[in-house]
Amino acid sequence: MQIDLMNCMCSNGTRTEPEHLLTSRMAHPSDTVVTVGSHKIGGGSFTLIGGPCAVESEEQLFTIARAIKDAGGDILRGGTFKPRTSPYKFQGLGAEGIRLLVEAGRWVGLPVVTEITSIRNLSLYEDVDLIQVGARNMQNYDLLSELGHSKKPVILKRGFSNTLEELLLSAEYILSGGNPNVILCERGIRTFEPMTRNTLDLSAVPVLHELTHLPVLVDPSHAAGTRQYVAPLARAATAAGADGLMIEVHHQPELALSDGPQALLPEQFSQLSLDVRAIRNALR
Amino acid sequence: MQIDLMNCMCSNGTRTEPEHLLTSRMAHPSDTVVTVGSHKIGGGSFTLIGGPCAVESEEQLFTIARAIKDAGGDILRGGTFKPRTSPYKFQGLGAEGIRLLVEAGRWVGLPVVTEITSIRNLSLYEDVDLIQVGARNMQNYDLLSELGHSKKPVILKRGFSNTLEELLLSAEYILSGGNPNVILCERGIRTFEPMTRNTLDLSAVPVLHELTHLPVLVDPSHAAGTRQYVAPLARAATAAGADGLMIEVHHQPELALSDGPQALLPEQFSQLSLDVRAIRNALR
Amino acid sequence: MQIDLMNCMCSNGTRTEPEHLLTSRMAHPSDTVVTVGSHKIGGGSFTLIGGPCAVESEEQLFTIARAIKDAGGDILRGGTFKPRTSPYKFQGLGAEGIRLLVEAGRWVGLPVVTEITSIRNLSLYEDVDLIQVGARNMQNYDLLSELGHSKKPVILKRGFSNTLEELLLSAEYILSGGNPNVILCERGIRTFEPMTRNTLDLSAVPVLHELTHLPVLVDPSHAAGTRQYVAPLARAATAAGADGLMIEVHHQPELALSDGPQALLPEQFSQLSLDVRAIRNALR
Amino acid sequence: MQIDLMNCMCSNGTRTEPEHLLTSRMAHPSDTVVTVGSHKIGGGSFTLIGGPCAVESEEQLFTIARAIKDAGGDILRGGTFKPRTSPYKFQGLGAEGIRLLVEAGRWVGLPVVTEITSIRNLSLYEDVDLIQVGARNMQNYDLLSELGHSKKPVILKRGFSNTLEELLLSAEYILSGGNPNVILCERGIRTFEPMTRNTLDLSAVPVLHELTHLPVLVDPSHAAGTRQYVAPLARAATAAGADGLMIEVHHQPELALSDGPQALLPEQFSQLSLDVRAIRNALR
Repeated sequence: MQIDLMNCMCSNGTRTEPEHLLTSRMAHPSDTVVTVGSHKIGGGSFTLIGGPCAVESEEQLFTIARAIKDAGGDILRGGTFKPRTSPYKFQGLGAEGIRLLVEAGRWVGLPVVTEITSIRNLSLYEDVDLIQVGARNMQNYDLLSELGHSKKPVILKRGFSNTLEELLLSAEYILSGGNPNVILCERGIRTFEPMTRNTLDLSAVPVLHELTHLPVLVDPSHAAGTRQYVAPLARAATAAGADGLMIEVHHQPELALSDGPQALLPEQFSQLSLDVRAIRNALR
Repeated sequence: MQIDLMNCMCSNGTRTEPEHLLTSRMAHPSDTVVTVGSHKIGGGSFTLIGGPCAVESEEQLFTIARAIKDAGGDILRGGTFKPRTSPYKFQGLGAEGIRLLVEAGRWVGLPVVTEITSIRNLSLYEDVDLIQVGARNMQNYDLLSELGHSKKPVILKRGFSNTLEELLLSAEYILSGGNPNVILCERGIRTFEPMTRNTLDLSAVPVLHELTHLPVLVDPSHAAGTRQYVAPLARAATAAGADGLMIEVHHQPELALSDGPQALLPEQFSQLSLDVRAIRNALR
Repeated sequence: MQIDLMNCMCSNGTRTEPEHLLTSRMAHPSDTVVTVGSHKIGGGSFTLIGGPCAVESEEQLFTIARAIKDAGGDILRGGTFKPRTSPYKFQGLGAEGIRLLVEAGRWVGLPVVTEITSIRNLSLYEDVDLIQVGARNMQNYDLLSELGHSKKPVILKRGFSNTLEELLLSAEYILSGGNPNVILCERGIRTFEPMTRNTLDLSAVPVLHELTHLPVLVDPSHAAGTRQYVAPLARAATAAGADGLMIEVHHQPELALSDGPQALLPEQFSQLSLDVRAIRNALR
Repeated sequence: MQIDLMNCMCSNGTRTEPEHLLTSRMAHPSDTVVTVGSHKIGGGSFTLIGGPCAVESEEQLFTIARAIKDAGGDILRGGTFKPRTSPYKFQGLGAEGIRLLVEAGRWVGLPVVTEITSIRNLSLYEDVDLIQVGARNMQNYDLLSELGHSKKPVILKRGFSNTLEELLLSAEYILSGGNPNVILCERGIRTFEPMTRNTLDLSAVPVLHELTHLPVLVDPSHAAGTRQYVAPLARAATAAGADGLMIEVHHQPELALSDGPQALLPEQFSQLSLDVRAIRNALR
């Protein structure tokens, strides 16, 4: 019951009142800015993250990395340890994928982000600029606590059935461990509507901006699940005030090993980059 | 189960295949344009509807009507027969409310829209330019069929737990009766997230534009439930490609008889009108 | 947002506090018993309702009616005006269906129940013992108010996305009109789970029994959507303390004009009737 | 989107078709029976698990353990590593809690079950008879894979927003690692209804029994969230055919460090134990 969850912020412990939470804007009114390489996330800047769902090969990754850079992308994404619903599906290239991703980032001059699925692999992420905690692990408190002991920037994605309050309390696990570099990401929630993979909850953007000082990104690719809905939702997220976007891009989506149908083509990503800038300028 | 619903479009009857549905873009590729007074909805134009949740008094309505007109609004809204969850809450001014609304519209030179809750009242709506079917009546097929025998333009709001396919099939009830003047409206769906009154499903905009030729509006007021989230969601809906917005406005929301907390102040509506135009220009 | 809905019971009007609601057990501690023909619903008795989703023909209906009676059923159900998602699907036999249903009930000696979808048809229901308001019309307040002016017993089904509080407030529309003969019915809510047509919310039974004095039935057929899940859910509802069950039965489900896959065969209904009695005896 | 999930069972890889899944009843028609101490779970027997939400102290635990044993309980539960939404809430007694739990189990002669939240703690569970994977970790594939390399029996709880198919595929992670001793547990899903903490989905019982040979338990305590709804839901789960129940019990719930409001009192647990037996006998 939601009311139960609300109580955890309102109960009478010293640190559980909203004004004492580290994630709360009541406690820290000014925007947190997270530095990733030479790029800044939050505080009025806009961050465009692009790349394939999964790192599949050197050729695939380097082709897409070049396209992301050329389109004005700020950070290169690519899955390496993939949490798949079925144990029999492609699980990612693992350590070799991380090596390729870091290399591709350096080649095009972009910081890189990839997901972590196990604390046992943490040492493999040393050269990764930004670590992603995926939706399925949003309440893996063991992983969150461990990331709290690092200073590495973390993107924390909302679980597909977690409330915004739960997202903030999961972020609190990282911040209370000593790591202030947390970025939140809305990526769609689970509802009864089958036309889209998930329902993108864009009210998360203004609600989170009100409640917390942490930057808020939006991933419309996983919410849409279908290529042609990604750009309209990305434009919408921008107009709603998101601090950035995380977009899946593939130059040969029909050959992709995961989530091909939701990947933008490089030229679509390029057009989106222009649209996003235009919207930001219009609302200035 | 969603699959059951999908079947109703795919089953083997002659009229139940998508290509034969009157609402389907496969059957009618070009956009439907609905004329309301001298204003056109759909087909590339943008429609800004504003006004109070409920018509409360002549003074209240005329004050707000003037503000809507001055801000560049295209249509004046105001509830007169209000479907309230509790029988003991304000149920609207009824026929007298419709009389006031029509008068206010003429005074400021705007067409008017108000909700219908009973086929018995249909004759009262003769001077109303646009009739709204609310979320709770989206599957009141008796009402839909009756409106199909009229030529009066109808805004059909998505039920707060209805799929987009069900919305289209409800529209089909009106079109198949002979009335082609139907406008769809996304207003938020029911989910587990308590921070907003409902979860605005903006993917409805690109999905509906792909599936149907009917115009698609967005009502962010009922989805947000809270004033400060309305404008970001309205901007987002515009950037997602909506054909228009339906916004609740009140000059004294703290005195409103219903839904005061989600009403924009006139000056906020005015700013939103400017923002919406700026976004539309930027994306042209 | 649920909190908004909760408020409608807690706000400061005289009749909107729970202790003043006509549906509230605080106001009326003892169970309401609704008399239908010579059968009593609520107050410790158990009511087994069975019959086809839709009345299709005299032969079909009379065959099934006999089976319901022989199995120990208390009331015969059969849809006559069917609210269908698509306007091109079988809409029921209408007035002729009501005539057949009443005749079949008399022939086997059972009271009958059928759904109403329009206030315009109310006069057709004179010989019907029990009127059902379906899930899609749970918030059709025009229809509810009209039924409040009758004394005819009403089964009010929970909308597939309505809270229990909304269900009670819809019942309040009928009671406050002067008709105390209301029976509530849980029939499944809409969730993300696709294996069943809806998710049967059996917590509704103890929650409603705590909050209200009205009888509470359960319809597992529409929730399950698939024959083999109906009996386990029906047994579960009985063990949870439901005052009765509403079950779809068809002797030739593969030929049924609607909802065939969820209909029990007569012999399955017969076995269920025995199981239900055994559970009730065991818990006495 | 559900259809995406369904595909993972229907896609054209060798091991992803239902008939090849290790969890599938198509592949293994007869019921799996999991042995825990001298107790057998599944295959027609019934398992009653009881105990406190969290192990709080020796006195608390031993008092409750005695009550569980005396009431006819089969297994003693008690949380030791608690995954809490807020980092500032009681996180469990950890290793010391496990030591107390094992000791209490031996003292009363019952096997014990407790939740694991981190693979790093696995060695602490050596004397624990049955390991629970909680709802929040249902898709923590790193943890599931690790448990697949053990032979220790595992209770896998359904995530509060996971489909039944996802639950089965998570179980597949454990089975495919070599551990066949998996027990599934329905504990409520997240919906819009606020009267209960979650919505118990009892259709999970017949659906899972059809799809898989693994035993299926039900935890009505977390679904209900409120003491008075637990017993009706537990009786319902029994009548639906569950292979057992997992119930939170506390002798001083008002002093409990977590989830006190949903704990049964020992005498209520005792009565429930009788009711469950009566229902099982009645349906034999």
